[in-house]
Amino acid sequence: MVSFSISGSYTDLYEITMAEAYFLEGRKDDACFDYFFRKVPNNGAYVVFAGLQDILSILTDLHFTDDDISFLKELKFQASFIDYLKNFQFHCNVYSCPEGEIVFPNCPILRVEGNIIEAQLAETMLLNILNFESLIATKASRMKYVAGDSILSDFGLRRAQGMGGILATKAATIGGFESTSNVYAAQLYGLTASGTMAHSFIESYESELEAFRAFVKARPDDCIFLVDTYDTLKSGIPNAITVAKEMESSGQRATGIRLDSGDLAYLSKAAKHMLDEAGLFYMKIVASNQLDEYVIKSLLEQGAPIDIFGVGTRLVTGQPDAALDGVYKLSMSSGKPRLKLSETLQKTTLPGIKQVRRVIDENGMFFGADTVALMEEEKKIDTMYHPVEPGKSLIIENFQQESLLQKVMEKGKIISASPALKDIAAYVKKRLALLSAEYKRFENPHLYKVGISKKLLELRDQLRNYYKKIKE
Amino acid sequence: MVSFSISGSYTDLYEITMAEAYFLEGRKDDACFDYFFRKVPNNGAYVVFAGLQDILSILTDLHFTDDDISFLKELKFQASFIDYLKNFQFHCNVYSCPEGEIVFPNCPILRVEGNIIEAQLAETMLLNILNFESLIATKASRMKYVAGDSILSDFGLRRAQGMGGILATKAATIGGFESTSNVYAAQLYGLTASGTMAHSFIESYESELEAFRAFVKARPDDCIFLVDTYDTLKSGIPNAITVAKEMESSGQRATGIRLDSGDLAYLSKAAKHMLDEAGLFYMKIVASNQLDEYVIKSLLEQGAPIDIFGVGTRLVTGQPDAALDGVYKLSMSSGKPRLKLSETLQKTTLPGIKQVRRVIDENGMFFGADTVALMEEEKKIDTMYHPVEPGKSLIIENFQQESLLQKVMEKGKIISASPALKDIAAYVKKRLALLSAEYKRFENPHLYKVGISKKLLELRDQLRNYYKKIKE
Repeated sequence: MVSFSISGSYTDLYEITMAEAYFLEGRKDDACFDYFFRKVPNNGAYVVFAGLQDILSILTDLHFTDDDISFLKELKFQASFIDYLKNFQFHCNVYSCPEGEIVFPNCPILRVEGNIIEAQLAETMLLNILNFESLIATKASRMKYVAGDSILSDFGLRRAQGMGGILATKAATIGGFESTSNVYAAQLYGLTASGTMAHSFIESYESELEAFRAFVKARPDDCIFLVDTYDTLKSGIPNAITVAKEMESSGQRATGIRLDSGDLAYLSKAAKHMLDEAGLFYMKIVASNQLDEYVIKSLLEQGAPIDIFGVGTRLVTGQPDAALDGVYKLSMSSGKPRLKLSETLQKTTLPGIKQVRRVIDENGMFFGADTVALMEEEKKIDTMYHPVEPGKSLIIENFQQESLLQKVMEKGKIISASPALKDIAAYVKKRLALLSAEYKRFENPHLYKVGISKKLLELRDQLRNYYKKIKE
Repeated sequence: MVSFSISGSYTDLYEITMAEAYFLEGRKDDACFDYFFRKVPNNGAYVVFAGLQDILSILTDLHFTDDDISFLKELKFQASFIDYLKNFQFHCNVYSCPEGEIVFPNCPILRVEGNIIEAQLAETMLLNILNFESLIATKASRMKYVAGDSILSDFGLRRAQGMGGILATKAATIGGFESTSNVYAAQLYGLTASGTMAHSFIESYESELEAFRAFVKARPDDCIFLVDTYDTLKSGIPNAITVAKEMESSGQRATGIRLDSGDLAYLSKAAKHMLDEAGLFYMKIVASNQLDEYVIKSLLEQGAPIDIFGVGTRLVTGQPDAALDGVYKLSMSSGKPRLKLSETLQKTTLPGIKQVRRVIDENGMFFGADTVALMEEEKKIDTMYHPVEPGKSLIIENFQQESLLQKVMEKGKIISASPALKDIAAYVKKRLALLSAEYKRFENPHLYKVGISKKLLELRDQLRNYYKKIKE
């Protein structure tokens, strides 16, 4: 078990420094921050939003422990501010997409509204949790997309980034993984724990056969024989068949075999043939060894009869992209819309309190367009504009439109019961089914459009002109 | 604060399954496992070994909590084995390179000797901690190598892999980072906490000047003005100069400015010029925004007058390689040397209890050769052999040789007091200074040779022949 709790010092120092400056000035004005990302990892088109429940639960209970307070005193924060932190509670409102929503670049996913000090202090931990869980849920969903009915099992703890392995396993479940080797995560989140045996187990016996038999004695109901320690086809599979036959004669059934090296396509076909010849049709084939979505896709395209894929490093670290670049940007303060200028319009942020309207086509599928509008606008948006080239527009008035952001926290309290993890995973599956295949392919996926409403466009341009004048 | 403690369930299920099989057979025989890696991340030549203290402290206290035990009962482990786990203690001996040692592929870094059940149960958590801390310490050392006297500060928590961010900060310190934005890690490990201000802080005021002045009121001793919110050269730096001059007139000194976008080489030179013109020679220039060792090197080669680099994502995730591929392989059990065969000699493991002899040249520098020998051999090795092409050999008898592996844990107890983090960082610096520049360059670094002794070569070949016969 790893017991953990996150308190106020799980943050960047500058959050506390800025909070002190606001506090000393007596600022308690309302602010609004948007969470969004700019680039989809792994050259994909979409991200699976994950981590909402975790961050809401952290914010509900956000406080500074005695240790935190002592440390902040050492850092010479002022006494009145330290007193404020001692009694700190988070009272903001949070609006968010549902956990498991399929989301796209430059589109608000969540916003925090409330006292600027509190909203500021949420930043680092919110980014830490949402960026990482969304990264891994997305990676897992790519693997599930190509794995189809094959089972995916997380084997990643040994290569995970320290305790990042815990949330990685949870997020993998959201993205479509069915089981995990990680005992702690299985215990914490109610997941199916799974595992086989290591090469060392077999090497520690005088023979492979002896090792397999010893394993059967301990775990007759869950025997997956690792068959590549000495020679997969000449030794491992024949010995697995021998022991599986012995099990049959005492009314037991071996679960399967695991391949962990060599050409998995060739070996799985040969293994299937040998098992079938021996009448062991029920034995499953598990494959592991440096798998990712590309390898799984290739293996299944080659007709490899693999029932279960055990995926490690590239699942739990998200490789090759090990981070989602999510940011938390101010969009309102003191009752005024704000933006961050940039040399490019693409990186200029969207001001004001916003809603996202997802366009649904006549078949109930995602049309491939989200429109960011001001909250105050009509529920239905007529026309969406390209955020960088506003000459480009798309008429969407005849389509159904969903509002993605809903209130999930009111004055620091979570509004509704958290869905079970399996329900979040089911939501991902349901929503991904509404996204057509062109957005899910790995090579140059179709670009999902994110546009803005006319009112938001006008507000942004007005503010840009205002700030440009300021600086001249 | 994040409080955490790791217990027995922070592992892969198969470790517990194998332990049960050993237990039910009454096996308590001694085994030996080696920790080593095969591939250096980021196409480098070396790895900085980190995480030793953490894993030793975890193993010393390794136990199964009541929650762990309840969960294992649900998984139907047998009652006698559950009783054994209730009273579990780790009694193995551990031999290791010092934490901070510079280590190379296919060379044992640490070994665990003792009861096979206990040694097996250490595997997953040991790999999780050592792989990740070594990955990040190595990445940090690459940045420090090019940063020279410039200060490196970790800004990565928001993009870290969940709670992996805590050990990332610690490991970055081992590799040469001087400070961190991560308040919790600073508190836990006694590091220097540092930070500036966010764009949102400035946007939340009616003007940049007003924001800078508010900040000075709160933190007059630690003012680093973020200057790129509106326009770095036309607004940010002029305003920073205005406020720094105001500070001077009340006897204060601004610490510096931070650049977070745009061409950092050009902007830092222009900023330096403007600050110097204003007589603010003491103000430091901090740069951040998607930095890594390549960008830092390029900036300094261009003469960018940057005093402090704030590094985030690519430090704390190790990108582009987000994992070190360290493994834990059986080398002895029941008093007999063991190996894992593989189709390639390169991946066949080295059997027996081993020591590593590092060759030192006549100038006291690393000669570029580590020899893996059997523990029982003479302290000085005459000749080292290429592990894959044994026709290639190198005579090393005339060189000084260091023994890298020393006992650090005896029967589950840590032998000597843990060095302070700054002493580990100093050791890294000292040892890296003994590694010549060709091994530290980023493009096609020189290959550090790892060879084996004649006796180890013979033992390996003898075992290979034995196992090859078994499988035929």
